[in-house]
Amino acid sequence: MKTIYLFEEIADDIQKVEEELQNLVETEIQVLSNASAHLLRAGGKRLRPAFVLLAGKFHNDSRDKLIPLAVALELIHMASLVHDDVIDASLTRRGVPTVKACWGNRISMHTGDYLFARALQLVSQYDDPRIIRILADISVKMVEGEIQQIITAFDVEQGIKDYLYRIKRKTALLISTSCGLGAIASGAPPEIVRGLTRYGHYVGMAFQITDDLLDFTSTEEELGKAVGCDLSQGIITLPVIYTLRSGFPGLRLRELIKDIEQGGDGLAEALEIVRKGPGILASYNLVDRYVEKAKQELRWLPPTPTRDTLANIADFISNRQF
Amino acid sequence: MKTIYLFEEIADDIQKVEEELQNLVETEIQVLSNASAHLLRAGGKRLRPAFVLLAGKFHNDSRDKLIPLAVALELIHMASLVHDDVIDASLTRRGVPTVKACWGNRISMHTGDYLFARALQLVSQYDDPRIIRILADISVKMVEGEIQQIITAFDVEQGIKDYLYRIKRKTALLISTSCGLGAIASGAPPEIVRGLTRYGHYVGMAFQITDDLLDFTSTEEELGKAVGCDLSQGIITLPVIYTLRSGFPGLRLRELIKDIEQGGDGLAEALEIVRKGPGILASYNLVDRYVEKAKQELRWLPPTPTRDTLANIADFISNRQF
Repeated sequence: MKTIYLFEEIADDIQKVEEELQNLVETEIQVLSNASAHLLRAGGKRLRPAFVLLAGKFHNDSRDKLIPLAVALELIHMASLVHDDVIDASLTRRGVPTVKACWGNRISMHTGDYLFARALQLVSQYDDPRIIRILADISVKMVEGEIQQIITAFDVEQGIKDYLYRIKRKTALLISTSCGLGAIASGAPPEIVRGLTRYGHYVGMAFQITDDLLDFTSTEEELGKAVGCDLSQGIITLPVIYTLRSGFPGLRLRELIKDIEQGGDGLAEALEIVRKGPGILASYNLVDRYVEKAKQELRWLPPTPTRDTLANIADFISNRQF
Repeated sequence: MKTIYLFEEIADDIQKVEEELQNLVETEIQVLSNASAHLLRAGGKRLRPAFVLLAGKFHNDSRDKLIPLAVALELIHMASLVHDDVIDASLTRRGVPTVKACWGNRISMHTGDYLFARALQLVSQYDDPRIIRILADISVKMVEGEIQQIITAFDVEQGIKDYLYRIKRKTALLISTSCGLGAIASGAPPEIVRGLTRYGHYVGMAFQITDDLLDFTSTEEELGKAVGCDLSQGIITLPVIYTLRSGFPGLRLRELIKDIEQGGDGLAEALEIVRKGPGILASYNLVDRYVEKAKQELRWLPPTPTRDTLANIADFISNRQF
């Protein structure tokens, strides 16, 4: 995996993060350990820990101070993922969730709460009060983003601004916070904290738009899940918003989204329209602009190999296929 | 309401807590404000804020230091209540949740996350790192209690120890923490913090056992919700556990619980057996013992009017009818 190459200079620390994650989710309550272990095995790029560790390298490289924070940020990310699994009948096909899917609701919710509480335990060990304050603030905003995603489901009138509001809260905030807190925990001065926080914001925005593009441009095999997942749930992403504004294909897409909402089978045609429409290219262009902005923020940092790594990560994110 | 009489000396502060709660749940996202406001209107005894405020009176009575903490503890309580609303099909009758009940799942979950994050914001303003550490630790344990309640649903083999484990995590921890943190925030010395924490633990245990008793002994009118709610969901409480161990009624109750689990209509007979069985009196006796223990812990405190109030609250809790 290409990410491993990019994380080479922090490979040992990432390994340590992985071990700590394994240890932390162990509990005497079997179902909780199982659910958490399942999430851990599912993997993930460990992007947030990597940003904490890399951001911490611009000042005192105090590995011991960074690792609990890196673990905490991954736990918060995992908690938000597992809370995303909580299901509404109104969002499932034909309105009938399977018993298994519904049994999972309470367990998913409590597992998420558990992982978040574990993260808090780690973070509460730090003496710097800014860390918990920043995490509390972004937690409020992240929920606002989640709710906004539910409210705007199937809403074809929403604009680019609504979309950017959501993905900032859903993704970019936690990535920019990972960068910022890594710098804070390493004792870096304010201008470095600010530069890294802004870098993380732009990278996070580029990352989420790319993620939303892959739901149209990738294959089920590459993605590891069904394509068109967002649109089938009514989540209107950037390529869709651009396409909705593009004359005839936009009008047809609008009809199809209404059809999907009412349980019809318009998904395949809708996906084709978006794939052939102008939204894909326009979205890639916005990704490129965010990547450029991210790299510009690196000018505030000392010219170290880690700075080059951060620039490479920004480039990698806009080119990834999975 | 009798509680208001007991909270007389902190009436102004409780009013202030109420106002702060109202202000805090305001957000630009309407559905979130509505869900939170609905919870606030539903009321509640504001027991946890009251304990924070009363516990803070044994040292410097610094109202300004106590109110954000009191608000935070109520928000955490509300968050756990709203997360309790998240539904599993397996726990609903005939396995078919209404669309409305299921739509509520995601909103309930996110509203709970939001209230918890708001509480964190308040708590992160305190300089004393013990406050966030204690809250992180009990958050982990509270989730363990919730999961344990799901796992042990309809399990007639569970014992008194299992029940006490659950109610400690479900209720007593947050009440003892309210007392302990009130003392900590007021700058009280360790022996006062410890005494109040233990007092809160015993009061919390007595409170939850009484709550579980009322599900059998009260009426729908007094309770404001259906009686027998716990047993219908398979939650095995202390009166049931005692009755299950009592010869013939116990054997019949065991059959009926199996019947309820399989969707049968054995609830009314099961409730009657518990009401007439030995479990009610035995449970009240345990409540009395916890109340006695709570009052004994007050001996570590200076003999002030607030100490008398805490003793009266312990007595009140074991006698309440709602």
